[in-house]
Amino acid sequence: MNQSELLKILESVKSGDLAPVEAIDRLKHLPFEDLGFAKVDHHRALRQGFAEVIFGKGKTPQQVAAIVKAMLRKKDSRHNILVTRADAKLFAPVKKLNRTAKFHALSGVITIERSTEITGKGTILVVSAGTSDIPVAEEALLTARMMGNRAEPLYDVGIAGIHRLLDHRGKLVEARVIICVAGMEGALPSVVGGLVAVPVIAVPTSVGYGASFGGVAALLGMLNSCTSNVTVVNIDNGFGAACVASCINRL
Amino acid sequence: MNQSELLKILESVKSGDLAPVEAIDRLKHLPFEDLGFAKVDHHRALRQGFAEVIFGKGKTPQQVAAIVKAMLRKKDSRHNILVTRADAKLFAPVKKLNRTAKFHALSGVITIERSTEITGKGTILVVSAGTSDIPVAEEALLTARMMGNRAEPLYDVGIAGIHRLLDHRGKLVEARVIICVAGMEGALPSVVGGLVAVPVIAVPTSVGYGASFGGVAALLGMLNSCTSNVTVVNIDNGFGAACVASCINRL
Amino acid sequence: MNQSELLKILESVKSGDLAPVEAIDRLKHLPFEDLGFAKVDHHRALRQGFAEVIFGKGKTPQQVAAIVKAMLRKKDSRHNILVTRADAKLFAPVKKLNRTAKFHALSGVITIERSTEITGKGTILVVSAGTSDIPVAEEALLTARMMGNRAEPLYDVGIAGIHRLLDHRGKLVEARVIICVAGMEGALPSVVGGLVAVPVIAVPTSVGYGASFGGVAALLGMLNSCTSNVTVVNIDNGFGAACVASCINRL
Amino acid sequence: MNQSELLKILESVKSGDLAPVEAIDRLKHLPFEDLGFAKVDHHRALRQGFAEVIFGKGKTPQQVAAIVKAMLRKKDSRHNILVTRADAKLFAPVKKLNRTAKFHALSGVITIERSTEITGKGTILVVSAGTSDIPVAEEALLTARMMGNRAEPLYDVGIAGIHRLLDHRGKLVEARVIICVAGMEGALPSVVGGLVAVPVIAVPTSVGYGASFGGVAALLGMLNSCTSNVTVVNIDNGFGAACVASCINRL
Amino acid sequence: MNQSELLKILESVKSGDLAPVEAIDRLKHLPFEDLGFAKVDHHRALRQGFAEVIFGKGKTPQQVAAIVKAMLRKKDSRHNILVTRADAKLFAPVKKLNRTAKFHALSGVITIERSTEITGKGTILVVSAGTSDIPVAEEALLTARMMGNRAEPLYDVGIAGIHRLLDHRGKLVEARVIICVAGMEGALPSVVGGLVAVPVIAVPTSVGYGASFGGVAALLGMLNSCTSNVTVVNIDNGFGAACVASCINRL
Amino acid sequence: MNQSELLKILESVKSGDLAPVEAIDRLKHLPFEDLGFAKVDHHRALRQGFAEVIFGKGKTPQQVAAIVKAMLRKKDSRHNILVTRADAKLFAPVKKLNRTAKFHALSGVITIERSTEITGKGTILVVSAGTSDIPVAEEALLTARMMGNRAEPLYDVGIAGIHRLLDHRGKLVEARVIICVAGMEGALPSVVGGLVAVPVIAVPTSVGYGASFGGVAALLGMLNSCTSNVTVVNIDNGFGAACVASCINRL
Amino acid sequence: MNQSELLKILESVKSGDLAPVEAIDRLKHLPFEDLGFAKVDHHRALRQGFAEVIFGKGKTPQQVAAIVKAMLRKKDSRHNILVTRADAKLFAPVKKLNRTAKFHALSGVITIERSTEITGKGTILVVSAGTSDIPVAEEALLTARMMGNRAEPLYDVGIAGIHRLLDHRGKLVEARVIICVAGMEGALPSVVGGLVAVPVIAVPTSVGYGASFGGVAALLGMLNSCTSNVTVVNIDNGFGAACVASCINRL
Amino acid sequence: MNQSELLKILESVKSGDLAPVEAIDRLKHLPFEDLGFAKVDHHRALRQGFAEVIFGKGKTPQQVAAIVKAMLRKKDSRHNILVTRADAKLFAPVKKLNRTAKFHALSGVITIERSTEITGKGTILVVSAGTSDIPVAEEALLTARMMGNRAEPLYDVGIAGIHRLLDHRGKLVEARVIICVAGMEGALPSVVGGLVAVPVIAVPTSVGYGASFGGVAALLGMLNSCTSNVTVVNIDNGFGAACVASCINRL
Repeated sequence: MNQSELLKILESVKSGDLAPVEAIDRLKHLPFEDLGFAKVDHHRALRQGFAEVIFGKGKTPQQVAAIVKAMLRKKDSRHNILVTRADAKLFAPVKKLNRTAKFHALSGVITIERSTEITGKGTILVVSAGTSDIPVAEEALLTARMMGNRAEPLYDVGIAGIHRLLDHRGKLVEARVIICVAGMEGALPSVVGGLVAVPVIAVPTSVGYGASFGGVAALLGMLNSCTSNVTVVNIDNGFGAACVASCINRL
Repeated sequence: MNQSELLKILESVKSGDLAPVEAIDRLKHLPFEDLGFAKVDHHRALRQGFAEVIFGKGKTPQQVAAIVKAMLRKKDSRHNILVTRADAKLFAPVKKLNRTAKFHALSGVITIERSTEITGKGTILVVSAGTSDIPVAEEALLTARMMGNRAEPLYDVGIAGIHRLLDHRGKLVEARVIICVAGMEGALPSVVGGLVAVPVIAVPTSVGYGASFGGVAALLGMLNSCTSNVTVVNIDNGFGAACVASCINRL
Repeated sequence: MNQSELLKILESVKSGDLAPVEAIDRLKHLPFEDLGFAKVDHHRALRQGFAEVIFGKGKTPQQVAAIVKAMLRKKDSRHNILVTRADAKLFAPVKKLNRTAKFHALSGVITIERSTEITGKGTILVVSAGTSDIPVAEEALLTARMMGNRAEPLYDVGIAGIHRLLDHRGKLVEARVIICVAGMEGALPSVVGGLVAVPVIAVPTSVGYGASFGGVAALLGMLNSCTSNVTVVNIDNGFGAACVASCINRL
Repeated sequence: MNQSELLKILESVKSGDLAPVEAIDRLKHLPFEDLGFAKVDHHRALRQGFAEVIFGKGKTPQQVAAIVKAMLRKKDSRHNILVTRADAKLFAPVKKLNRTAKFHALSGVITIERSTEITGKGTILVVSAGTSDIPVAEEALLTARMMGNRAEPLYDVGIAGIHRLLDHRGKLVEARVIICVAGMEGALPSVVGGLVAVPVIAVPTSVGYGASFGGVAALLGMLNSCTSNVTVVNIDNGFGAACVASCINRL
Repeated sequence: MNQSELLKILESVKSGDLAPVEAIDRLKHLPFEDLGFAKVDHHRALRQGFAEVIFGKGKTPQQVAAIVKAMLRKKDSRHNILVTRADAKLFAPVKKLNRTAKFHALSGVITIERSTEITGKGTILVVSAGTSDIPVAEEALLTARMMGNRAEPLYDVGIAGIHRLLDHRGKLVEARVIICVAGMEGALPSVVGGLVAVPVIAVPTSVGYGASFGGVAALLGMLNSCTSNVTVVNIDNGFGAACVASCINRL
Repeated sequence: MNQSELLKILESVKSGDLAPVEAIDRLKHLPFEDLGFAKVDHHRALRQGFAEVIFGKGKTPQQVAAIVKAMLRKKDSRHNILVTRADAKLFAPVKKLNRTAKFHALSGVITIERSTEITGKGTILVVSAGTSDIPVAEEALLTARMMGNRAEPLYDVGIAGIHRLLDHRGKLVEARVIICVAGMEGALPSVVGGLVAVPVIAVPTSVGYGASFGGVAALLGMLNSCTSNVTVVNIDNGFGAACVASCINRL
Repeated sequence: MNQSELLKILESVKSGDLAPVEAIDRLKHLPFEDLGFAKVDHHRALRQGFAEVIFGKGKTPQQVAAIVKAMLRKKDSRHNILVTRADAKLFAPVKKLNRTAKFHALSGVITIERSTEITGKGTILVVSAGTSDIPVAEEALLTARMMGNRAEPLYDVGIAGIHRLLDHRGKLVEARVIICVAGMEGALPSVVGGLVAVPVIAVPTSVGYGASFGGVAALLGMLNSCTSNVTVVNIDNGFGAACVASCINRL
Repeated sequence: MNQSELLKILESVKSGDLAPVEAIDRLKHLPFEDLGFAKVDHHRALRQGFAEVIFGKGKTPQQVAAIVKAMLRKKDSRHNILVTRADAKLFAPVKKLNRTAKFHALSGVITIERSTEITGKGTILVVSAGTSDIPVAEEALLTARMMGNRAEPLYDVGIAGIHRLLDHRGKLVEARVIICVAGMEGALPSVVGGLVAVPVIAVPTSVGYGASFGGVAALLGMLNSCTSNVTVVNIDNGFGAACVASCINRL
């Protein structure tokens, strides 16, 4: 049922052709979602500052290009466009569609920046333990920026040399939300969480070998954090961490 | 919003106080579930032949009695009442509420039979491998019966002595749905499934020790069944298996 | 021993050459399956509407072609032929054997349709959560159709946007059996199961990364479903789900 | 070293008794945290609105009472006191120490409320799936309140009956942070997250049996949530979820 | 169908009342196991030297007593009777049934020895690593003896002090089959297997703590044995190891 | 120290040059294995009927060829030579060394048969469930034969069509040892074990997908077998199963 | 064979009663360990500073007392005696045997100190994260002391408040070996290891709940430590850590 | 802040330009690590005998070359340079930078030896079980040597032929630290540990198949070692084992 159908019912009520109690019966059996539900969803998208994100992995260059094309077609939209888990092959046709598209090789992220408006209230700091964690950290950093946040990196401050982290306590204290990316034993969020009073989103990475079990060791470490301001997202989910951080930073 | 509120809107439309297009806007923002949704749910309950089932484990005798009392109060309802994972302590106050309540010690099930109508079309056969699997099998059997099915047991036909099972091929072939309960290696459903053309609901049990890992071995065995008419429910979930079987048997 | 051999024994009994008690001894040591057992198996195949299905993965194009050739040779058979987990290489020689053979690239299924007879009583609805789940969903859809069922898809109705699913409540309610395919947290079957009164066959997919552990998260989610009309098959087993659904749909 | 000691060194420098280069040596070997570090820590405690929380499990009534006594001794402190994972035995001596102490049997939480000041900016909504999840939900609710937040419960809105949740969309939309507690398949946070634009802290519970593996199924489900505003804490960690929510609610 | 029924059919054939082709039809539908199948099973029991073994765990004293009573009733049987995983409570009523019944507290085994005939050809040596493994080792030892084997213990020869084992190389070399019981790292079978040329049945035990995971470490160690004459049974399954060893020792 | 050195010491004792107590001291510090230990090992090899087996996987063609060459150099040895987990590349140089070398592509085994003597007392039957299990079954079959056993295959008798297995009960009953190879749910050994009285060596295979977890489901199924004459070796370890079976068959 | 027997053989050689070549034969078949092997073992015990340690768990008071009695009987021995995993019941009879016996309730350790000699070269520092880790830490501390080491505790310096640890950098730097005990995420050893240049023995504890999985999270964290001077022992194995530390401290 | 800045503050105090209480304030806010902390870190590097190690895996040849170049630039440094997990591609540009660079193909290690000074006090013995464990063993051996230790290999002494190990008891006894590398059941460290009194660092390898689970079986075996002088590092972590051994060998 669309609006015109609903209008018909209501006009029948107005005209007296349909008694109000009978109208109730009809309305009860309507597929209720058609009562504007899609709009609500649209509003949600608007509030989050994004039209849509494309998870590139497993999609063909043609598929990605088609989706990006559809997004670009809505001329009045100023939403940034983000393709995650992409590579050079996926980037080629996107670049043709839009000259400003950029491919960030380290994180496998494609960005089309159409708005530089900052809607987040504070800074999101993305902290990472080792150099191998940087791809995930960069995915988080770029996502946070594309979603309208000031976002800064603080990399290679693993706990094996604790002073490297302590040297930057200033940066930690100034952040409004912290994303903390770490593989191996995944202990960095606990230390970081202990130094600040803001929420810390922990991202375990699949970096490591042997008993790291593809990030499980880091994941379990973070879930068992002895610091009470730490929450956790899935292994390698830099994008998700940035979404949550962005949610929080708009509050 | 309840019906009277909705009526008010419609009557305003009828009286001309509210234009149809304005009414649409108001209706859009209604909590739509109030448009009779609860009834739909009620219908689902009716279709499944049950008012409510009580999962007894973790509830106090007082809590169980209170819920049963509420159920019995709906005088015109003829639904059977079922309490699973119960024990003698939970049964005591229920017995006081209703003289016909029975406690089935083997399976820990309490039944209050208020209707003996058979609504299932065929027979549900509950097959079990070993004597230790019987509690789960009985939970399935009683649930199936309380839900209006003819249900028959076929116990202790494990595959270590395959002839015990083959001896009863007649029973297997006559069933419309088969529930197959097995612990340890959980291989019975594969053999049973190979002998019949009807759906087989496999229930792994936590019976076993060591590498049975509380039913995991049986669960994995069933999920990997080489027979294509087998589906699986959770470990020890005799109740769930009977619900599905009952759904199927009403088709 | 075939029937002619058995006949010989019985005729010796008739003629008096073999005493009845001696005949018992001989019969005891017969490989009993030869007493028509193979036929029973053949009947089972017939009832399920299939001569044979070929699991293509791990087979060479030559092997698959040889099996298909043998199937096609039985001229009077009108069974549809299905090769699952296939690819373009496996398809090439099959295409040469039979012009009507089709390769469904999305699901990796090869079909040779020789009968369009509908033997299932109702519609099997194949619901999937995300676009990445579609290959498994398509395997289920094509299998269901090849087995003589009306089968319809309802894709991309994941629970993150619950209204997408609720929009199609009509389709859900009309189905006789529902196959529900989902990866990641695998929660779709629980929501779907709560909206209908028919059996829901849940298929976890290996879609996801990190803590999805190749489909384990979805599998566990489905086994723990809080909805009582849900059963589960192995990860990515769209074929198996369709077999069970087909079994049920013929009841 | 406290400030007075540091002052002494500096005054020796001022008086000329200690050469600046010698002072450097002394300062290098100072336990540097004494340079105000403890204060920082104290500030952190203040900002989080808590003197200390006592994890009751594994402690004797004497130990708990001793810690509470020490807390109560700081007369000028107005911090609320919270003992989690407690029972009646732990409560007895605490009650003697402070008449206003309350024991919340459902969640095993002891509270001593000394301040009712609301420091959180919005409402924290605690949503739970089943009645068995309520103990964990209550731990979260009480913790959030003791930490100076408006916190409201929304219980028993599991996804098997999706309308129960949709009925309360108003409450969901009004919350500033949502804590979502669920056992079994743990799918509630995904559905809730899809309906709102604020952060959702998911708490898996150990409720369930068989393949729930003490909360692992729910945990994995939540980590794999298809909704991007969901983060996760440890199994049964209602307290931790409330701490994070409280952090966020003060931003 | 028993023999007399079969005889009837065959006599009808003989008398001409039943045509041989008709007889074939009837025979086809016989539950074929009745063609002496039960006897085969009985023979198997006889060949293995046991009427039946009772797995005591989870059975009531009444149930165990009833089964033992039924076994003792077959006056002409001389089979030994074995109850495993028993305790003093299960033993009490068994003792009343038979004065010669013995309870072996260390292993939780009840034995009623009715035959001392040795049917195994050689000696079964039961080797165990630590003193905590002795209960499982004793279950194996008693089972082996009750099944008609010469069986000898060789305990406390763990590999941490390899000379303890090497001191008894004579015993190892003389055995015809070796059962090797070990918890913790479960490495004993590999060392023992390297010293002999006979089959070694490895039994992991649940002895240990932490990362022994209830015997999983030992189980995996044994499955990965670098010695090629080692096979494995379930954790703590001393009984099963002795059954296999007994099978081998009768060859 | 070799025998000549030991002889020197003893002759010094004899000649009086070395006092017995001094000789004791010298002997204590001897590497005791030189007292014939290597021979014992050599004897063990002889008793097992093999000079050495080469695990081909991970070795270069050059390495494999070098080892085979060394084996062939011992002209008086008549031991068969076996290379497992090999491929065509490994075979090429071996073929050049010995014209009689054969490569068995299905199982990846290279054999050089230098003796056809049968030293095993009975027949080893290698039973497999599905066609995909045949590579592992063939590894077992060839190993058993190369070790001097009569060994026969019985393939494709999985339990989904139980009659296929029962048809060959004769073969099962005649075997002295049975190797039973199965993937997926791994239930075949339980059924086979129930039909015979000889030891059954179960080999789980990594055949399957999803919840088969690379053979874990089959492994657990076999370890939990309800049949007491079943033991288990590592996943895909056809070689190991044949070694144990060969050990048993020589008893 | 003891020395006197060996002497006999050698004297027979000397006297000419036994030819040297015959003596070789006899010596070959000696249980070679009797050639002083037991002594070597004895020496090992001496070097490690311990007669024997008793693992109390699972032993009866009588058993423990009997072993202690046997140890005390060797009057000339000055070794300290240690019973781990003990309780008050095990202690009672030990106390009667020796007045100086002490029971350390926190760690469940019984000590009988007969020597206070310090044989370790430096200090073993036992660092622990939380108060709940103290039982395991104390087991390590007492074991280290009983084995002749200076051993000092440094407790409650978890990484959530990193300054607590940094405050004691002096103690860390002065230690010769560090034992680091931590539950939950087990990250303390990484931080400690980064601050020192000596070996760190990490002990995961079973402290925690939910996804700590009885110490698995801590164990994995430690195995994946990003600090290269960390090794790991089993969960809760304070005793083992102290043994290794003691080994190192004697070097 | 460096020393000169600190000096300035102190001189201002001395000159009276800065009051002591004001100086305290300034000092409190200093990044305290600058008080010589970096030096400590530098010292740690010096004490460990290494400027830096490069973990080659996942780095490009360019990246590795750039890091090596930076290391070589510090002309006065005589530290050896080590690249682990490297291959021929990574080696090519390194070779161009330094003629003395060597690539060890077996272990994938690149070494640039600039110092042959021995700083370790005793010998580190690297023992390995099978030939497949040699790559990991070699990584340990080369690392130990590059860190200034005498290090010797003892390979292919697995426990299946225990005499191979016992033959080399002399070497074992002479070592100051032992690194013990083993895959499959990982039992070698337990046997080795029982023969010596020095610390044994156990390295599980991912060698094996099936239930070895990529080294998990070996890892668990080692963690559960019944020998008390064994500690464990991560799977395949030969480098880490050598670091710890080197730490110990310098004590």
